[in-house]
Amino acid sequence: MSELKTVLERLAGRANGLYGNDFLLTWEKSEDDLRTLLDVAEALRLLRLDNTTTRCFDSGLAISNFRDNSTRTRFSFASAANLLGLAVQDLDEGKSQIAHGETVRETAVMISFLSDVIGIRDDMYLGAGNAYMREVGSALDQAVTEGVLPQRPTIVNLQCDIDHPTQTMADLQHMVREFGSLENLKGKKLAMTWAYSPSYGKPLSVPQGVIGLMTRLGMEVTLAHPPGYELMPEVVELAGRQAGENGGAFTRAATMAEAFAGADIVYPKSWAPYHVMAERTTLLRAKDQAGLDALEQKCLAQNAEHVDWQCDRALMDKTAAGKALYLHCLPADITGVSCEQGEVTEEIFEQYREPLYRQAGYKPYVIAAMMLCGRFADPGALLKKLADDGAPRVRG
Amino acid sequence: MSELKTVLERLAGRANGLYGNDFLLTWEKSEDDLRTLLDVAEALRLLRLDNTTTRCFDSGLAISNFRDNSTRTRFSFASAANLLGLAVQDLDEGKSQIAHGETVRETAVMISFLSDVIGIRDDMYLGAGNAYMREVGSALDQAVTEGVLPQRPTIVNLQCDIDHPTQTMADLQHMVREFGSLENLKGKKLAMTWAYSPSYGKPLSVPQGVIGLMTRLGMEVTLAHPPGYELMPEVVELAGRQAGENGGAFTRAATMAEAFAGADIVYPKSWAPYHVMAERTTLLRAKDQAGLDALEQKCLAQNAEHVDWQCDRALMDKTAAGKALYLHCLPADITGVSCEQGEVTEEIFEQYREPLYRQAGYKPYVIAAMMLCGRFADPGALLKKLADDGAPRVRG
Amino acid sequence: MSELKTVLERLAGRANGLYGNDFLLTWEKSEDDLRTLLDVAEALRLLRLDNTTTRCFDSGLAISNFRDNSTRTRFSFASAANLLGLAVQDLDEGKSQIAHGETVRETAVMISFLSDVIGIRDDMYLGAGNAYMREVGSALDQAVTEGVLPQRPTIVNLQCDIDHPTQTMADLQHMVREFGSLENLKGKKLAMTWAYSPSYGKPLSVPQGVIGLMTRLGMEVTLAHPPGYELMPEVVELAGRQAGENGGAFTRAATMAEAFAGADIVYPKSWAPYHVMAERTTLLRAKDQAGLDALEQKCLAQNAEHVDWQCDRALMDKTAAGKALYLHCLPADITGVSCEQGEVTEEIFEQYREPLYRQAGYKPYVIAAMMLCGRFADPGALLKKLADDGAPRVRG
Repeated sequence: MSELKTVLERLAGRANGLYGNDFLLTWEKSEDDLRTLLDVAEALRLLRLDNTTTRCFDSGLAISNFRDNSTRTRFSFASAANLLGLAVQDLDEGKSQIAHGETVRETAVMISFLSDVIGIRDDMYLGAGNAYMREVGSALDQAVTEGVLPQRPTIVNLQCDIDHPTQTMADLQHMVREFGSLENLKGKKLAMTWAYSPSYGKPLSVPQGVIGLMTRLGMEVTLAHPPGYELMPEVVELAGRQAGENGGAFTRAATMAEAFAGADIVYPKSWAPYHVMAERTTLLRAKDQAGLDALEQKCLAQNAEHVDWQCDRALMDKTAAGKALYLHCLPADITGVSCEQGEVTEEIFEQYREPLYRQAGYKPYVIAAMMLCGRFADPGALLKKLADDGAPRVRG
Repeated sequence: MSELKTVLERLAGRANGLYGNDFLLTWEKSEDDLRTLLDVAEALRLLRLDNTTTRCFDSGLAISNFRDNSTRTRFSFASAANLLGLAVQDLDEGKSQIAHGETVRETAVMISFLSDVIGIRDDMYLGAGNAYMREVGSALDQAVTEGVLPQRPTIVNLQCDIDHPTQTMADLQHMVREFGSLENLKGKKLAMTWAYSPSYGKPLSVPQGVIGLMTRLGMEVTLAHPPGYELMPEVVELAGRQAGENGGAFTRAATMAEAFAGADIVYPKSWAPYHVMAERTTLLRAKDQAGLDALEQKCLAQNAEHVDWQCDRALMDKTAAGKALYLHCLPADITGVSCEQGEVTEEIFEQYREPLYRQAGYKPYVIAAMMLCGRFADPGALLKKLADDGAPRVRG
Repeated sequence: MSELKTVLERLAGRANGLYGNDFLLTWEKSEDDLRTLLDVAEALRLLRLDNTTTRCFDSGLAISNFRDNSTRTRFSFASAANLLGLAVQDLDEGKSQIAHGETVRETAVMISFLSDVIGIRDDMYLGAGNAYMREVGSALDQAVTEGVLPQRPTIVNLQCDIDHPTQTMADLQHMVREFGSLENLKGKKLAMTWAYSPSYGKPLSVPQGVIGLMTRLGMEVTLAHPPGYELMPEVVELAGRQAGENGGAFTRAATMAEAFAGADIVYPKSWAPYHVMAERTTLLRAKDQAGLDALEQKCLAQNAEHVDWQCDRALMDKTAAGKALYLHCLPADITGVSCEQGEVTEEIFEQYREPLYRQAGYKPYVIAAMMLCGRFADPGALLKKLADDGAPRVRG
């Protein structure tokens, strides 16, 4: 339990700026709050490994609102809610219905009377997902002010058009554990690169979330992609500004080889160009299936010009000591396994499969930490009490 | 806690006639039992506001059987179950399959071995919804008698073709809190009126439930609708009889203006004519889509003759002191917001939005009270123990 | 509680070979382990009847993965999970997608980070269902070895192409209670026979599971079906071998009358011929709808030659004292009730309806016992502690 003791001591002195606030973008949170989140996630993980219950809600609902298909995030959310004692209730609107205006405001209140947390995934429409979460949040604020809601449920962004904070914070927890501490990440080189995939329309939230978070930690972050595969300009600009403010660097590279050179961490992953996602949003809204099909064909053809953007042994050999940490949010497009030609060779994927699965395993704890920090003013004190009580999760 | 103390004292002396019985129609319940239900709902609400757990089941299932789409009632049911410690399990039969006979009897037993509550919504088929609930109930009775089931799950009517008791009891709780007490409702004028909507086929259960409940409380209830928009004759007759027995009145009016004149409470809401619902039931059973489409066109044309049945400022000005309490079960068809022309103007809806949302917020507690009163012989004693224990819902 | 005391005493001395292992086929388990399972199921049932909580997980997920429609098994699984304190989370892959290879391995891990149990139903594809469960299991084993998973969820077979252990163990618990003890089943005659149904493609898992389990108990098991309605050859062979080893008998009969003669227990139930299921698997995999339709027509025609395979009074009169115990996994095809011509007459079904429903009522306890025995080294000690604590399931 000494590892837990260290984490709890770190938490003890720190104010919790996440309390009473939604978790929508990592770059809206202070560095201290991100440290708190990592520590709370780690404490929850250690308590569970020790078979100590972390149930702090005797009843309460965690609402999940998935506006896109999901298996992994759905299970991570369900696991996180359950870990704290909340029951999951799905809000299933039908995939195609993107409600706005009065409907959003009213629905937000109607589902929240006895709810403690709302998790939302809305990543299909550029300019819409994060905005929707804020619309829900402001409806809830109003309802609390008016006395309609007895408590303000915390909104957790389970992936939007801009950021994917539960993913990148799990990535960060993984990196912290692999490199020993947050401090050890300073000066480390991370390559966030595009990679080829035989599909199109993959969200921008992971690469944007990665450069938006890792540039705050004093890391040297390099972004590389083929011409035209731009991210949202405002996030790229933010990454540059943050790197400058935090003693790190944010550079661009034209090839994977250039980005991988000397890298300590590589994150090769496919995404759709920003302007394509914007065009796709317009077509989706217009329900123009012919237009969508044409766009898909054009994009797949464009992708096909870059099949050489694949993470393989030769590229990995260029990284620091040839053994950079390989990251992916999963599922990866693995050449010869899940597709003919993909983001990564089977050899490299297989070499890193075990750490990749551990990386994924942090997500339930990160989500639980977001729930807990949003709803408890002093998560450190709560976790200490749970540790001191030592009530078992599974009876002996 | 003095408010809670008053409620618990009221409960202390009262026998619970709801114990061991299903909650299908408000008019099958004694006035005392309705008082108990309101008090239990209020006690649950106050305990939760005070962060006191009301978990009285350590395990157990609450089954939800929605034979029509639902978001609000689904969340209210899930919230209520969770508040008492029950886990929700959906029985999803597919929307079109309306089973009868042996299948109903057998399924009712198969889902009930370890279940404590069954919530059913079945409002599409005239003459079928309430009958289905009774068919389930009698299968459960038989199974208990035969020793097949160790306990009798309580059935809660979440809306049928005749009544919508969870809605009208929430409406009543709202009115009691707005007017100070159940006694204060005596002599108050309530206008239950039709209103225009650009849709057709809305159930009759709300207006029927309202006149079937509020005529028992010494209120002066007026029902108004355009020619042809009749409710079920037996419920209208019941309303008249009850008004006579309880010192109130039940009158009919030909216009909204007439009904609103001097009203303390107004409930303008669209519904389909009784004979249309009957015709629709026949067509639905025959799966006659062409017939259904033709019926819809005919009804929408008929509705369109009554677009002036809209709740607006001029009508509200006719009510008592121009400030009657405006009620709606939500979602309302709001002119210029959710439709071009609807049941209510944006101005009036916006003026009453806050109380409307509070009205909706009582539903989870009303449903929880129906569960609790059906399964516990002495709900007052149970609630007192929960209050005395004072175990927190959310850990401090 | 003296009945419970007897069961707990039986459990006290017995090692639990089910601990840490999946429950996939009854014939992989020792006779002692089957006895443990029956005793644990019975103890759970008695504790619940006594309103004693059997919650032994304070949090944790039970994942259900239904690759075929299900109502009864779904509710049994949900009831079992809830009885032990686990929350159910569905893994819904879409009915048609039968994933293999990397996808299975990765998904198995991704859903298991905080999961304690995984229930799988996969009975559509011959040669695939049980194999899929083993593939999931071996992925989980690897993940535990690699330190990716903190605990190994127990897999429970909720029906596969080979066996239906939760059904047959519930059948066995029913028989034990009807005949007084497991020992009393020795020498009893059981007729497992085909019966006519106006449908095709019913799985083989029930008849296979029955002959694979009951031949181990010293019973005289007779299998009867029309020519061509073969079961998997390896299970038939296993049944013969087991009967020889356990002092029972396994014989074949050409007619229901022959099989029913002197039987103490009869289990008449429709199934599809083995070679048809194999052909169907090939067509399903090829998505050959025309081929499937043609196969269905051919099979229904073949079935129609055997409408006389119906359990009726004349056949029941041939059984021991004319009052054999009639078993069915439900729902049965009842002549004149659920179909024109079916597996059983209404008279016989109605006569045995009550015991049939009790038979079905054991399934939640059997599933809970499989979960508990897989996750707790000493289920007897755990159940004794729960009994001694005597904490109520429903508050008094």
